[in-house]
Amino acid sequence: MKSDLDALMEKHNLDALLVIGAATHNPMMHYFTGDVHMGDGALIKVRGKQPVLFYNPMERDEAARTGLDTRNLIEYNLPALTKEPGGDAAKGLAARYARMLADCGLEQGRVALFGKVEIGAPFVVFNTLMALAPQYELVGQTGRSVLAEAMETKDEAEAERMRRMGRITAEVVGRVQAYLQSHKAKDGVLVKADGTPVTVGDVKTLINASALELGVENPHGTIFAIGRDAGVPHSTGNPDDALELGKTIVFDIFLQEPGGGYHYDFTRTWSLGYATPEAQKLYDDVKTVFDDLMGGLEANAPFSLLQERTCDLFEAQGHPTIRQDPAVQEGYVHSVGHGLGLNIHEQPFSRDASVTLRPGVVVTIEPGLYYPNKGMGVRIEDTVYVRPNGEIEVLADFPHDLVIPIQNA
Amino acid sequence: MKSDLDALMEKHNLDALLVIGAATHNPMMHYFTGDVHMGDGALIKVRGKQPVLFYNPMERDEAARTGLDTRNLIEYNLPALTKEPGGDAAKGLAARYARMLADCGLEQGRVALFGKVEIGAPFVVFNTLMALAPQYELVGQTGRSVLAEAMETKDEAEAERMRRMGRITAEVVGRVQAYLQSHKAKDGVLVKADGTPVTVGDVKTLINASALELGVENPHGTIFAIGRDAGVPHSTGNPDDALELGKTIVFDIFLQEPGGGYHYDFTRTWSLGYATPEAQKLYDDVKTVFDDLMGGLEANAPFSLLQERTCDLFEAQGHPTIRQDPAVQEGYVHSVGHGLGLNIHEQPFSRDASVTLRPGVVVTIEPGLYYPNKGMGVRIEDTVYVRPNGEIEVLADFPHDLVIPIQNA
Repeated sequence: MKSDLDALMEKHNLDALLVIGAATHNPMMHYFTGDVHMGDGALIKVRGKQPVLFYNPMERDEAARTGLDTRNLIEYNLPALTKEPGGDAAKGLAARYARMLADCGLEQGRVALFGKVEIGAPFVVFNTLMALAPQYELVGQTGRSVLAEAMETKDEAEAERMRRMGRITAEVVGRVQAYLQSHKAKDGVLVKADGTPVTVGDVKTLINASALELGVENPHGTIFAIGRDAGVPHSTGNPDDALELGKTIVFDIFLQEPGGGYHYDFTRTWSLGYATPEAQKLYDDVKTVFDDLMGGLEANAPFSLLQERTCDLFEAQGHPTIRQDPAVQEGYVHSVGHGLGLNIHEQPFSRDASVTLRPGVVVTIEPGLYYPNKGMGVRIEDTVYVRPNGEIEVLADFPHDLVIPIQNA
Repeated sequence: MKSDLDALMEKHNLDALLVIGAATHNPMMHYFTGDVHMGDGALIKVRGKQPVLFYNPMERDEAARTGLDTRNLIEYNLPALTKEPGGDAAKGLAARYARMLADCGLEQGRVALFGKVEIGAPFVVFNTLMALAPQYELVGQTGRSVLAEAMETKDEAEAERMRRMGRITAEVVGRVQAYLQSHKAKDGVLVKADGTPVTVGDVKTLINASALELGVENPHGTIFAIGRDAGVPHSTGNPDDALELGKTIVFDIFLQEPGGGYHYDFTRTWSLGYATPEAQKLYDDVKTVFDDLMGGLEANAPFSLLQERTCDLFEAQGHPTIRQDPAVQEGYVHSVGHGLGLNIHEQPFSRDASVTLRPGVVVTIEPGLYYPNKGMGVRIEDTVYVRPNGEIEVLADFPHDLVIPIQNA
């Protein structure tokens, strides 16, 4: 968590962090600034010191709202720094970064780069910085970076924000269920009073309206995929699709706090009115594995053991798995879980052999089976928090039922 | 525009473009893919050839929806490529990019990098790629990159999408005006039936609900800033603020097509019920300059001349300007316009001496004056399209009036 940052920087052999870009929808910057409307800026954290936020003059009020130490970028006179090297913009920006690092008390050392930004300009600027100021080594980290490792465990304030997002998610899913159950079936599809079908698009409109009313964002969209689409894990569903009874619907919803804050991740599979025997069997297979995994969760266990366990169980049921064939497109085709927080997917990942379910992690548990050619798929997903004392907490309660009873079905 | 891309690549001495990241909220990727739900991927366009989209297997359906030539990334067997160099993730990814470039027919050359992504991993991966495969030079472009230059002029299909966004914006602004006028004043503030004040937050809720209903996004938020906040150009407004009569409200709205498509940018300044003489004078000063600029727009004129003209006129009116002092915080403190499209701010910029209002550009014209210590600010902004024949088209009509009449005011 954030309080581990200095120790983690030492472990990663880093003297400073340099985070660039906006405060919104930029997880690594948002981690420091919180939800402020800063369109561009930079943050430098030297090991053992408080971070400093550099802002553009038009955004001084927003920068002040962060509560961080701040500096106005205009003090660096970028036009003059750019004019000196013959108008070379990359050299001017590189010279500015060198001065900013020096002003934060860093005379030399390894500086890790972060921030979700258009890559072209910073790629040349930071390579130029290393040429101009070789006392600084700019470091890009793949995989489990120092910030990813810090963000991997949540403090109580972060857990509470995710708990709240879980409650809001359950509220939205409950509204969708109530909406579906307020309609009747006719000729095998759910219809409105005027006889026209209820569509996937109608459901998504309700989800977005509910998110808005409840003050959260839905920036990545929602998966509400029926029939063959339910059999393709990341198909989001066709807005024009009618809701046919007896077909599996994978409903995967991942709402986010406004401005790019914390997420919640949640999936149910529904079948309206009734389930076909084949769909019920598929659901039972997934639910058996889901219950086994949830019942066996233990703090500090290797996360990848859950992926192995999932493959063991699905293979014993006779399903192909991604462990047998990385290109598999039927059966169990993905990994069983991932961390989430400011990123919808972040450390720890169940595919990494090295990571454990340390106290503080928030992870999804989401086994699923997919048979697009049979027109069906099932996934069940809850998000769990490993409390500091090692207890496992499901961050939102909602029934796991497959069949949603429908009038006239 | 996109049809100029091969010629622009030749002008920029580039043999290929490499665009990485998601298709949503990633302008450079969205430019090629359109609105599909692709969480990660890569696109390579070799000069003189059609672009190729590389996708992850879970997103094959979404990739297919783009209509582009596609390849499945799983064919490259990243685990094997990473295992070879001793498990070094950066080397594995670099080796994969080298093969992808070769598979697109590029044996050597200069490759420009694009895409809005978390910077750390690609920074090391692309530097590693140049070390492993020195036949490829990875290029980051600052300022007016080859894609920025292509995107700077819009074809008729793009202009029509922005015209539609203009109509939707005018519809939303009209709803806000009607909402305000449906309330009455009491003790100098706008109140609801129960006597509690209408707030900035209420207005923003209406804006977001309207955007949702009309099928557009509002990912950057809206500026609805009253009083002192109106005097700080990028203050977004305090949700708890009551709407006091006779105070200037800067209302700057920038909606976007869903998934990160085209924007529209629009500002009006309102004063509810009445305007103080001082606010009316400030408005008149801005409106005079706005009308002068709009009346003088000409295709192919240098955009920066408009910034000069704006400073000339404001200085003649006795206002300080950013031309006199780059750190100015009162008077005219920003630039007069910018291009917009998939980015809310993009080429051309009125601050660049080299760019002209070429046929095809879509730019804002937005003079403003700010006096935070007097508790007021005024900005007026319309978005214009320079048609292929050189005609100037305002992409959305809406009255520019300062005073919004209020009952009981």
